[in-house]
Amino acid sequence: MPFQLTILGSNSAVPANGRFTTAQVLQVKNKLYLIDCGEGTQTRLGDYNISRRERIEQIFISHLHGDHIFGLPGLLTSFSLNNRKAPLTIYSPAGLQEMIEAILKYSYSHLSYDLKFVVVPTNKSVQVFDNKDITVTTIPLNHRIPTTGYLFKEKEKVRNIRPDKIEEYNIHYSKINAIKNGGDFTTEDGKVIPHKEITIAPPLPRSFAFCSDTTYQESIVPIIKGVDLLYHETTYMEDAKESAAKYGHSTAKEAATIAKMAGVGKLICGHYSSRYGDLTPLEEEAKSVFPNSELGLEGKCVTVAARRVE
Amino acid sequence: MPFQLTILGSNSAVPANGRFTTAQVLQVKNKLYLIDCGEGTQTRLGDYNISRRERIEQIFISHLHGDHIFGLPGLLTSFSLNNRKAPLTIYSPAGLQEMIEAILKYSYSHLSYDLKFVVVPTNKSVQVFDNKDITVTTIPLNHRIPTTGYLFKEKEKVRNIRPDKIEEYNIHYSKINAIKNGGDFTTEDGKVIPHKEITIAPPLPRSFAFCSDTTYQESIVPIIKGVDLLYHETTYMEDAKESAAKYGHSTAKEAATIAKMAGVGKLICGHYSSRYGDLTPLEEEAKSVFPNSELGLEGKCVTVAARRVE
Repeated sequence: MPFQLTILGSNSAVPANGRFTTAQVLQVKNKLYLIDCGEGTQTRLGDYNISRRERIEQIFISHLHGDHIFGLPGLLTSFSLNNRKAPLTIYSPAGLQEMIEAILKYSYSHLSYDLKFVVVPTNKSVQVFDNKDITVTTIPLNHRIPTTGYLFKEKEKVRNIRPDKIEEYNIHYSKINAIKNGGDFTTEDGKVIPHKEITIAPPLPRSFAFCSDTTYQESIVPIIKGVDLLYHETTYMEDAKESAAKYGHSTAKEAATIAKMAGVGKLICGHYSSRYGDLTPLEEEAKSVFPNSELGLEGKCVTVAARRVE
Repeated sequence: MPFQLTILGSNSAVPANGRFTTAQVLQVKNKLYLIDCGEGTQTRLGDYNISRRERIEQIFISHLHGDHIFGLPGLLTSFSLNNRKAPLTIYSPAGLQEMIEAILKYSYSHLSYDLKFVVVPTNKSVQVFDNKDITVTTIPLNHRIPTTGYLFKEKEKVRNIRPDKIEEYNIHYSKINAIKNGGDFTTEDGKVIPHKEITIAPPLPRSFAFCSDTTYQESIVPIIKGVDLLYHETTYMEDAKESAAKYGHSTAKEAATIAKMAGVGKLICGHYSSRYGDLTPLEEEAKSVFPNSELGLEGKCVTVAARRVE
């Protein structure tokens, strides 16, 4: 079952240096979750072969600055021009519904599908979405305007029955549910086979935290503790620490410090200032603090492999 | 003095087949006039080396469908992020100001320059702009919503004085203005040199008509009569004539018929339906009626050379 992040845009503020403004897609099983939607997101979805867009049923928006949302009008109306029927829900801080409704009204746009808006808090960590696969929880961030990150976490699964054991003990299918629910199995001659012997541990729940835009915030560490994948903005390097503080952003070193404190699996950098054409020094700055750091760049896919631990 | 059109987007409705939604830039002398602004226009301006964006002081919008305006939020705020100071005026049918103001409000955007909106009529041909170089006149079109084309026309210039004649007759600079205003020149020994001998004809005023989106409208022929360059939408081919009528568009044959009736210099096709991957048949359809037709495609520049006629 895939758990895969694709970067659609890695630059901050404006498109520059061949990079685009923020958008990412997280695939969990066969569902796609769009996170932020900078201008041109619909084009990048095509560029990176994310063609089955009907599978995007939720969009999570961190904040209402243009470089995170100006792709929405085009994406939402293109869905409609392609006669989308699947409903769509957008999670965001307050104000987005009013903006989108004005855009749809004045551009004479009528959507072919149901569009729903959910306003999420930006000052506390609460679960805002769940389905059978995942939960999504907000991560309060500190930017110039109300901003939230999102923690995507797979749900815990029950242990799986081992096919080889079904055969070995000739287990009737009527017994499967009881075993799945934690029961042992008793053979016809009365021998008890312990639950653990006939099942294997489920895959560990995988997790991804999206944290942009924000200053250095140690308060997020408990929320993102131990995530497999952390995207944390690295708009600047330490040489521009003052700009980072002034504009509500982080440096690569600060992001890596958060990654280290939270003991995450991997840090993905992004939301780069246009002043950085070559990002190698920025990546090195992150790696100097947290070695398993890498650059998020347009088209990059990062997969979290399934792991089982007995 | 250049008079040059650059195509930034040639597809209709949605980006597809490597093509983008409508935007064009007309350069006249050192000024740039942006016409429509589909999503990603700011990126294409960079792609095609139109970097001195401060020279765009006017934007002309044909109508408020998203594929003609969804690049505005990004462009307008990027101007500001680059600390633009030059004022900007947007000409469009009614409603755009309300939409843009809602977008700026909810995205917490504050512009660094003065932005002015001018509502233009869509039911009559009137001059809506002029400066020392050009006039811009509306062209009423027939689409599903209020839509206007724009006729860009260089102003007539006075005859220029020939430098060789200044030398030959030793003309004092104090006499120049009188000659420019149509006077003859009298030499010291009383010989009258006729105005025409010491001046040359000014370049002929060049003109460009932008006509999108529209059904086949013979009523525009008198307005665009004899323009050097006509951009007329060719969303469909004749095989989809019914779709053209249904959605308020034209076929390549229809556009070429208008070009022929108006006796234009060259027809530029565009606003192609996504159904056409290969546009060769569409170009052939236009050429079969009006041979001097060509495809408008992203990055294409079409220059109208200066001509003088005595």
